[in-house]
Amino acid sequence: MKGFFQLISSSEFLDLLSRFRPLAGTTLPLAQCLGRVPVNHDLHAPEDLPPFSRSTMDGFAVRARDTFGCSESEPALLDIIGEIAMGASGREYALKPGQAVHIWTGGELPVKGDAVVMVEYTHLLDKRTVEIFRPVAPGENVIRAGEDFAGGDPIMPVRRMLRPQDLGVLAGLGITELKVYKRPRVGIISTGDELVLPDQPLAGGKIRDINSTTLAALVTEAGGLPTCYGIVGDNLERMLSACEQALTKNDVLLLSGGSSVGRRDFTLQVLEKIKGSELLAHGVAIRPGKPTLLARRGNQAIFGLPGHVASAMVVFYLFVRPLLRLFVGLPASHGLREITARCAEQIPSAIGREEYVRVSLHGQPGQSLPLATPVYGKSGLLRPLVQADGLLVIGRDVEGQDKGSEAQVLCFPEQ
Amino acid sequence: MKGFFQLISSSEFLDLLSRFRPLAGTTLPLAQCLGRVPVNHDLHAPEDLPPFSRSTMDGFAVRARDTFGCSESEPALLDIIGEIAMGASGREYALKPGQAVHIWTGGELPVKGDAVVMVEYTHLLDKRTVEIFRPVAPGENVIRAGEDFAGGDPIMPVRRMLRPQDLGVLAGLGITELKVYKRPRVGIISTGDELVLPDQPLAGGKIRDINSTTLAALVTEAGGLPTCYGIVGDNLERMLSACEQALTKNDVLLLSGGSSVGRRDFTLQVLEKIKGSELLAHGVAIRPGKPTLLARRGNQAIFGLPGHVASAMVVFYLFVRPLLRLFVGLPASHGLREITARCAEQIPSAIGREEYVRVSLHGQPGQSLPLATPVYGKSGLLRPLVQADGLLVIGRDVEGQDKGSEAQVLCFPEQ
Repeated sequence: MKGFFQLISSSEFLDLLSRFRPLAGTTLPLAQCLGRVPVNHDLHAPEDLPPFSRSTMDGFAVRARDTFGCSESEPALLDIIGEIAMGASGREYALKPGQAVHIWTGGELPVKGDAVVMVEYTHLLDKRTVEIFRPVAPGENVIRAGEDFAGGDPIMPVRRMLRPQDLGVLAGLGITELKVYKRPRVGIISTGDELVLPDQPLAGGKIRDINSTTLAALVTEAGGLPTCYGIVGDNLERMLSACEQALTKNDVLLLSGGSSVGRRDFTLQVLEKIKGSELLAHGVAIRPGKPTLLARRGNQAIFGLPGHVASAMVVFYLFVRPLLRLFVGLPASHGLREITARCAEQIPSAIGREEYVRVSLHGQPGQSLPLATPVYGKSGLLRPLVQADGLLVIGRDVEGQDKGSEAQVLCFPEQ
Repeated sequence: MKGFFQLISSSEFLDLLSRFRPLAGTTLPLAQCLGRVPVNHDLHAPEDLPPFSRSTMDGFAVRARDTFGCSESEPALLDIIGEIAMGASGREYALKPGQAVHIWTGGELPVKGDAVVMVEYTHLLDKRTVEIFRPVAPGENVIRAGEDFAGGDPIMPVRRMLRPQDLGVLAGLGITELKVYKRPRVGIISTGDELVLPDQPLAGGKIRDINSTTLAALVTEAGGLPTCYGIVGDNLERMLSACEQALTKNDVLLLSGGSSVGRRDFTLQVLEKIKGSELLAHGVAIRPGKPTLLARRGNQAIFGLPGHVASAMVVFYLFVRPLLRLFVGLPASHGLREITARCAEQIPSAIGREEYVRVSLHGQPGQSLPLATPVYGKSGLLRPLVQADGLLVIGRDVEGQDKGSEAQVLCFPEQ
């Protein structure tokens, strides 16, 4: 097939993504940062957390040494010099030897107080005197100032998408806005004289555009911002102008259309004619997904995706998604969950190309590995995709998988 | 401890959620339906997909019987009566015996055409005559009208959050808007005189509110719409009025505050005094998370969460998240990924309550199960949460886990 003889491997394709650079940063309020990646992941705590030594129990703040050796039969007797109300400063009190102060969970310890006795191990003799039945060690029932994060401590262990607890830490440290990588903007153009918009009436030979809807959702799922530019017919001038237009506003452009050889050549022509673009890839040794094109214009990427939606989806997960993740500062990997499964039946494959077989997964009572069952179907069909839970990977030097053998499965993201 | 002696089990707590009903539906454009749940999951295809029999190859549409018995040495000779341009109706041609028509991948078959010969197995003798070297069976290289979905076929196998490929199918069938369950609105109030907003200056005895930020992100992660109502001090009248106000606009109300016995009693009083509310739960036999309260007012839920953020997060994943999922029409389960892991060390636990131990997970070369290492720390600390990947579950009748034993881990959602 003309133009598709220079197949590269999937890892060579992924290597090409290293030519792209992460996007710029934007400063957002913390409440909008869930799932975003900080530009500066090497953040350090600007202050101590907690800001002061806090009690973790309701009871009495004491000097620990005043409780040493006490017991039920020989309680320590301490003078109560007051109560630290919640939110009041404990530093208004300073404990002298033999003194204690009432404190609640979360309260600030008084000066010279270094431990808290739980209320369960105390007895009030009168309003000014408390009996202590159990000794406490220094630091007992206390979270020290800075014990969670000391000022200057690194906050995040690795660069990753922020989780709820990460945002909690930042709020606790007084960091209420954050510079995060911008979301990649992705333009989507469907090509083909046979396509109509999903809400338009069908006529003979026409089918509804499925790829725009599917690709836009895949972009959203990956954290990008999709814009659909509708359907452009098989006209080179109109197509070029639509691409140039979309490239003024997007970081990535996805072209998808039919799978005829003519359509592939058409997409290739478009990619070669876009001003300033350089063709990086021209076919990949995977199935489905062979007729994939990649071009670069500066830091913008233009993908020519296979026309069948099942193939386009495989290529999206394998190559587009890694680039979207690279653009937000993550490693250029698909980021899908990878599990080991057991093949429910024999799965044939040809040597020389990687295969990605749609499978459904089923847990097995008493077995730690789930069973992967191929959901076969022509690549133009959608039903197998709706039934599948992921893609079973068969390496390029392997002649299929035996029934009962272990295989890797890339799981579709859970919504 | 006053008021916390009527502990129920976690499964009893989950049973209480059956008193709530899914929210109403709202009709949205398909592009906004990723991750949403259709109210009517028993959707049927309104038309055939594909709408007509399509070629899956570039080549010639034929009557299969005209190719029977042909070979390289004895090709079949067919008259070319035309070409079906992409997007044109193939029904404009009707094949008589001995006739063929040029067709492209995705094109509509002509009347009486029942198979397609790939262009690779043909040779043009002249513009009007083609040689066929290989016979095709009826239906070969064709997707029949309705082969993917026939009009009337069920579309979705089960009720679940919509994935990109599900939206693709709906678009392909001309369904461009969908009635989906509304997202639950969740009001969040932090209580405590010791709290200040994260962007405010600290004073003696004051700490920044961490829970509002964390809980709002947990709500977003679960598909809900959070609204933070800020911090309300320890004043019953003000607190009641803040709750009544928030309940005019939300399906769920989350109260969180300190962990002192006084604060717990305060939250209990608030829940009991909200007009029309009924207290459903009053302590759960889990650790952390024991002092959890649940009240109901009609179909609205009010949770009193433990004050420590680590405990509040466990309760959110175990009980609040299932309710948010019930509200959008899913089963009332946490929906977290559950995996089997191997304990990296001995983990003690007390009989009589379930324990949820924060763990980090690490893949092991040559081992199918990951290793789960407890990330210990006082429950007031955030750092262990930032380091953890999930919660290891220890049943209520089990005295801890031995080193090397298998255990279930609930994984935190991936962003």
